Order: sequence, then structure tokens, then C-alpha cells
Amino acid sequence: MNFTGAHILSIKQFERVDIQRIFDVADAMEPYALRRKMTRVLEGAILGNMFFEPSTRTRVSFGAAFNLLGGNVRETTGFESSSITKGESLYDTARVLSGYSDVICMRHPQSGSVAEFAEASRVPVINGGDGANEHPSQALLDLYTIRKELRSKGRSIDGLRIAMIGDLKHGRTVHSLCKLLCVFNNVQVVLVSPKELAMPESIVEELRNAGHAVTVTDDLTTSISHIDIAYSTRIQEERFNSKDEADMYRGRFRLNQAIYTQYCEPNTVIMHPLPRDSRADANELDNDLNQNPNLAIFRQADNGVLVRMALFALVLDVVADVDKHSREVAWYNSLRQN
Amino acid sequence: MNFTGAHILSIKQFERVDIQRIFDVADAMEPYALRRKMTRVLEGAILGNMFFEPSTRTRVSFGAAFNLLGGNVRETTGFESSSITKGESLYDTARVLSGYSDVICMRHPQSGSVAEFAEASRVPVINGGDGANEHPSQALLDLYTIRKELRSKGRSIDGLRIAMIGDLKHGRTVHSLCKLLCVFNNVQVVLVSPKELAMPESIVEELRNAGHAVTVTDDLTTSISHIDIAYSTRIQEERFNSKDEADMYRGRFRLNQAIYTQYCEPNTVIMHPLPRDSRADANELDNDLNQNPNLAIFRQADNGVLVRMALFALVLDVVADVDKHSREVAWYNSLRQN
Amino acid sequence: MNFTGAHILSIKQFERVDIQRIFDVADAMEPYALRRKMTRVLEGAILGNMFFEPSTRTRVSFGAAFNLLGGNVRETTGFESSSITKGESLYDTARVLSGYSDVICMRHPQSGSVAEFAEASRVPVINGGDGANEHPSQALLDLYTIRKELRSKGRSIDGLRIAMIGDLKHGRTVHSLCKLLCVFNNVQVVLVSPKELAMPESIVEELRNAGHAVTVTDDLTTSISHIDIAYSTRIQEERFNSKDEADMYRGRFRLNQAIYTQYCEPNTVIMHPLPRDSRADANELDNDLNQNPNLAIFRQADNGVLVRMALFALVLDVVADVDKHSREVAWYNSLRQN
Repeated sequence: MNFTGAHILSIKQFERVDIQRIFDVADAMEPYALRRKMTRVLEGAILGNMFFEPSTRTRVSFGAAFNLLGGNVRETTGFESSSITKGESLYDTARVLSGYSDVICMRHPQSGSVAEFAEASRVPVINGGDGANEHPSQALLDLYTIRKELRSKGRSIDGLRIAMIGDLKHGRTVHSLCKLLCVFNNVQVVLVSPKELAMPESIVEELRNAGHAVTVTDDLTTSISHIDIAYSTRIQEERFNSKDEADMYRGRFRLNQAIYTQYCEPNTVIMHPLPRDSRADANELDNDLNQNPNLAIFRQADNGVLVRMALFALVLDVVADVDKHSREVAWYNSLRQN
Repeated sequence: MNFTGAHILSIKQFERVDIQRIFDVADAMEPYALRRKMTRVLEGAILGNMFFEPSTRTRVSFGAAFNLLGGNVRETTGFESSSITKGESLYDTARVLSGYSDVICMRHPQSGSVAEFAEASRVPVINGGDGANEHPSQALLDLYTIRKELRSKGRSIDGLRIAMIGDLKHGRTVHSLCKLLCVFNNVQVVLVSPKELAMPESIVEELRNAGHAVTVTDDLTTSISHIDIAYSTRIQEERFNSKDEADMYRGRFRLNQAIYTQYCEPNTVIMHPLPRDSRADANELDNDLNQNPNLAIFRQADNGVLVRMALFALVLDVVADVDKHSREVAWYNSLRQN
Repeated sequence: MNFTGAHILSIKQFERVDIQRIFDVADAMEPYALRRKMTRVLEGAILGNMFFEPSTRTRVSFGAAFNLLGGNVRETTGFESSSITKGESLYDTARVLSGYSDVICMRHPQSGSVAEFAEASRVPVINGGDGANEHPSQALLDLYTIRKELRSKGRSIDGLRIAMIGDLKHGRTVHSLCKLLCVFNNVQVVLVSPKELAMPESIVEELRNAGHAVTVTDDLTTSISHIDIAYSTRIQEERFNSKDEADMYRGRFRLNQAIYTQYCEPNTVIMHPLPRDSRADANELDNDLNQNPNLAIFRQADNGVLVRMALFALVLDVVADVDKHSREVAWYNSLRQN
């Protein structure tokens, strides 16, 4: 695809070569995210960070990514405005808001809303999550993390062995990740969930049609013994009819250091889209894993900044200029490097 | 008036020459708003964007205007703080907040509050809307849009023929626009509303005292046949005693392409302060007008950024320096130019 | 202490020499806060201004301080995110958010939360207030104000005579100020409150152990006759069981110009942490004091920006570079200087 001026709405837009391109640009952003240097390539540009549904970390991650490229951020953090309740169409909202910014990141509770918005926008729009539909930058950062973690072990996404664990029915991130994996080769996917929270059959089909080996199970320990990545997820309580119903499943698949040591191959990487539920009755990933160097969940969150910087640089066509506008960083930043 | 360091509180401050000055500066801001170039003239300056009542678009428009001049924005988006509920006076709030910024834009639900705030402020204050009272930048952007749209047709505000349509009783924007028109010559104003939602008599008087021809009617189609501008407004539901009462008037004056073609002169310009109510029972301006090149409602919103940039540049006395601090824009921005 | 990369969590961290250092740096920030010049020393750096409890003025003050050093601000203004309600630990929140910024300012309703957060953070954390526990930048700006006000009279903190007036039981600021005063010599403290709202005995002990003279009283007029500073506070209504209970004490100790003239020594300085309760039944500091040049309450708020700039410059180790990155200010700013 041609990224310049494009809307980033769905992972379905991407072919393998596009994903590769995003990841290569993300790699090039690392010195900036680590504050080894800084760049002002987007100085003067404005991100409209339009969150019509709260999400602190996604919002701040997009905003920080834009700041790291030198740009400014104007934002909204919920349905504060009553314009939409006053009967304004998404078309009008998009036409107006796109007059204020150079690129828009939008989150909205309604499935399909961001695509509708993008159609009327006069600037590129990046989907920051539209209800149960898509959250493409999350899927990209997950896959980018897998690539990065495996690469340091001399492996690649082709040939990946991954277990996805937890609420696979409601988890938007695992759905998107499966779809992204379909453009790679020879992946082994183990889907671990209670039967009632199984991965939708259509997605299992997609994986199999892509030639991948899929195992469906509700047993954790046997599933994690021959994998590269254990991708744990949270019970999406807010999608259940009641807290009681969610509680039936909470804490069903707990991974801790003892289980990890007993069942996993050495250096199996642990991922999670966050937030992880650390309450005693859930504890999907025990805190005793925090010192395990293969716990990649925070590197995963950090990678979100890289991927989002890459998306901004690509749609605004400044990839080649990032380094030209770079400078030394003078302030203290060595805690980060630890 | 002398703009340098002035508070912008009310359209009553402006004589004709002042309006002319603001509009000329707004014209000069266009290359920046269109990203043909960028300027850093206010680099290091801080806008205190103090919205004690939510209004996403006005807030973001002011913030973007300040960013486009190179400045930073600190803001609040509602009565988050309880300082005022803890008994703090506006005097104290103003003294404190003006210590944090170089200029303040303030919106507040209480009529007269912004003027009271300005009196205690140590930096210039721009009224971003104080209840039912004033919203001067909206009135200015409306008139600026009229000027711009007419100019491209070889006309000027003097001699303007305009119809104002809808809830003329509660619409703050049409009240302000009428007052601004009083400093121009030979305007014909057609006021189209249900009798119960008529323009306040005092404003009709002002128009007539200015020598303008005013027609009051409740018939849409005859009213729009010999005008330059059709300025449609929303039923201000929130000002009625009940939704039921508002519903009695909603959808009374609908303009769509068929009516436009049948009754309006060619190239009659359509305006609306937005948001327009696009629900089926309202539909003041039908979506089938969206492709009509004379639908100026989004250009009107875009003009808000220009007028706000002009106000900032004038009160901070940097008009002459804007171009000196300008640079090329390197990022993709051609969707905007379409 | 070594400020570089340090967390600023509690006033207990500071020895006398540290306080001196912060205040000297704050002094050096004054030309920037007054817009006599501007600096870009932190250009490219990001402050994570994480307010998990609303506080407009503290939030904006920290943000403005960071902008004045040239940096960007990403922020949150309340528990908008449900990550914490989804069971996320502070450890996880800290690890994730610290990936987005170069320094974090955090406010949180829970006592001790900021220290817990800091432990997991990979960037320096500044406590912006953690419940009833600490608000170190407020204590520092109070003491900095005392130093500055006294210095112009040829006095210093050693030998200070101060009366603290009002709700001394619940007032976090007076508790912290007392603790800070313990590293100075020969202070006379008069504690004026209703018996039920007296300063906690442990703090009185600390003052006495530091060699300070402490007088406890519930009589205002006799208490303010031989002091340098009258530090008035608000009845912390929100900490009482009911509004009725708070009302019993509200307005008990009112200072106005007549009382000031009759009882205070000339040039006694009046301070207040703000907001002051200006409602008729409270009126701790009457508005008729607003023209009294010894009313230091707004200079006190302004000093907050200086102290916060100093903290940022110190923990990010750019004190020596601030002036190197400085430039002229071109925009209008003379109202501020009045």
C-alpha cells in the first residue's frame, strides 16, 4: 500500500510487505523513544487525538509518539462535547475536526465509526479503537513485539509457535493478532480458553486456511510446553452480562514463575495486551514473574510508541526526514535505559 | 481600538476599522492554517485554554490556532477542580491562572463571568463564550465568512442580503451577528422563525436604527429567494423547558437541495454555526446539500482558526513577526487542500 | 541529596542544603516565568502529568513550568481510564506510563501511592499530592515564598515568627510547612485554631524538638500582633463528617484590613495556600485585603511555577543549560509585570 496520506483503519489493509515496512520504520524510531537523540521533523504539525471513549494509555501513547516526532497534540478525552448528542453526524464532526489538525487519531465506542469519520476527513485518520471492531496499532505492536523478541533468539515470525490464553471470545487483540499472523508462514497456534470463551470459529478457519496448525484446548500446562510466546489475556468483564458470570472464568488460567519453570521451555516469552488483572482472584500473570527477563509485557507497551511513531511518519511521509531534524538529548535519562 | 494587551470580551468593543483589521490579519494567517508554511512566532508562549464548560470544537479550535503560531497550550475541560465549589472567587481564580500563561481563552457558563475574570487577570483574556451573553470569536468568524464568500463574488458586507433562519430567540450567534452588522451599511435582513422563537425586539431595533431593512416572517421559501446568505440555526433544545416543547419547532424550516434549486438565486451561500442537527426529525440542512459548493458551513468552521490566530497575534502584538519566523512545511498535507 | 534522576516524594528527603539549592534554582527561573526571556532547554522532553485526582491549578502549574523549560506535556485529569478498575496494579501503571515520558508528576487520592508508583517507574517521579500524605512542591513553594518575602525586608527563615491560622488538623500544607521549618533555627510558631481542629500533637513535638517556640491558642487577635507571616487556611470541609459540622468552624478566624491595621505589625505578610473561601460565611481573608501590598497569596501561587521549574531542572540535570538555550521574548507581556 501507499502510506502517504492513507487512513489506517484496519489490519486488513496490510500485506506482508506493508507490515515489514511499518516494523522497519519502528526500528528506526528506537533511538528517539529511548532519548538517545531527539527529532523535530513534525515541528508545527498538530495531532488531533480524539478519544470519544476514555483510554489513558492508548491516548497518551499516541500523543507521546507525536511529541517525540516534534509535533503538538490537541485532544479530547471523552464525550465532553454535546455536539454529537445535539444530533451532529460523524460526517460533520470529521469535516470540522479535520480542519484543526494534520492527522487524527480517533477512538470511538461504535464499531465502524472511525471508517465513517475517515471518509469525511480531510486529513489522515488512524483508528485508535472503534468498539469491538478494530484496534490496528495494538495488533501491530503485538506482532512487532513478537518479531523483536524472536529476532534476539535468531528466529522470525515464520515458524512461530504461540499460545493465546484466556478470554479468546471477547479479546479484540487476539482476534486481530490471529488475522495479522495469516500473512506469515507455518505458524503453530494453541488456543487455550474455557469452552464458553473460545476463539470465534471464523478466525480459527482463517488461521487454518492460511496453512497454520491450530490446537484448541482448555488445559494450560500441556499447552505451554512447546511454544515461543505465551500471550495471556484478561477476562473482559465489561463484555459479560454480569460480574458474577465473569467471575466464573476469572483466574482460570494463571501463569506464575513455578508453572513457567516446570512447564515452559527456557526463554519462552510472556506477553499480555495489558492491563493485566492483578487482583487475587484473577492474577493472570503473577507478580513473581516481574523479575523474569522473558516477561515482555512492558517492552510490548514501550513498542507501542515505536509503532505509532512509525505510523505517523509513514502517513505524513516524513520517514526520510526524521534523522535530518535530529539533535542530541541533553537531559538526564539513564533510568529509562536500565 | 488598541489590540495590544487588550481583553477580547464583547463584539461591542469593535468599530468597523477594528473588524477590518482583524479580518486582514486573519487573511494573512491562511497560508499557515493551510500548512503552506508554518511559523514559530509564539514559541515559548503559553495559552491558558480554560473551559469551565465543555465545548470540544471551540476549545480545540483556539488551541490549534495557538499551536499554529508556535505556542503551547495548557487547558482545562470542565469544572474538574473544586476550587470554585470550595468558595473561590473569580478574582482569585483569575489572579492564579493568569500566572501560568501569556494569554487566556475562557469559557464559562455564567453570563458576565469572563469580563469579571479579565478584570483580575494579569494577561489578556479572550471570551470563549460566557453563557447566554457573548461568544465574540464566533460572531467574528461568521462575519469573516460572509466577507470571504461575498468577496469571491465581487460583493462586500455593505449591501449584504441575509436570511437568518430557525431559533432566533435563543441563538446567541445570530444575536451577535446582527450586532456586528450594525457597523456596516445598507444590509437587508430577513428573520425567519416561528413567532414564539422570534429575534428579540431590541435587536431588531438595533438593526433598524443602523438603517438596515428588516423583514420578519415565518415563511421559509419566500424568504430565501433574493438573498446572498442563508444562515440556518439549530433549535436550542437545551434552552427549552422540555424536549417536547423543543420538538414542536424542530424541523420546521428545512433546507435541502430541491428547495435550494427551486427558490434560491444561483450561488446563494449557506451557513450554519454548527453543530447542525442531522437527525431525521430536525435536518435543518439536509445532507444532500453536502456536495453543493455554496454550502459554506465547513469553510466557516475552518475560518474560526484564522480569526482566532488573528486575535492571538493582535493581542500579543506579533502580527508583524509572524512571517519572520516562518518555515517550509515538510509533511504530507494535500488532502486538506482538496 | 543528589537530585539527578531522583524521585521527589516527600519533604523528608531534604536537608537544609537541598532546600537552599532548590530555592537558588527557583530564583534563577524567575526571568523565564516573568517572560523577560525564554528557554528551550527541555525541547523534545515529555512530562507525564498524571492526575488521578482532579486539581486544575496544581496540574496547570506543573504543566506550565515544564512548557516554560521548552518541554511537552501529556496528561490525564482524573480516573478516566478504567485500567485501575480493571485490576491493574500501580506497579504496572508505572511501568507503562513511564515508557511515555521523561519525568512524571503524579497526583493520586491514595496515601503512599506515589512512592509505590515511583518504585516501578523508569523515569523520575514528582509527587503532586498523594491523599492526606504529602504535597512536597506546595510545602516548598510556601517556604520559598516566606524566604522571598522576608528577604526583601532583610530577614531570613532563621528567626522567623509565623502564625498558622484555621483548620490545622486537616490542613496538609501547614503540616508539611512545620516539618520543613524544623531544619531551620529559632522559629516562633503560633498555632491558632479551634481546639477541635488543633495541629496534631506529633507535629508540635517535632517543632519543639527542633528548638522552636510553639504557642497554641484559639484567639486570633492576640496571636497576630508580633509575627512576620500570617498563614491562613481554609476549613477543609471535605474532611468533615458533614457540611453542618464544618459550618461550626467556618468563618471563626477572619482577617480583614481593619483587624490587620489594628493588630498586626506594619508589613506583616499574609499567606494562604489557596483556594481561599470567599463566601460570606467563611471569608477567611477578606477581599478588602486585595489592595494590601503585604497580601502575598498570589505571589505565593506564582512562586509555585518557579519551584516546579527548579524541581524539573534539578531532577533532569539541566540547571546549567537553561540559560544557554535562552532567547528573547517578542510577544506582549507587560500586564504581567504590573
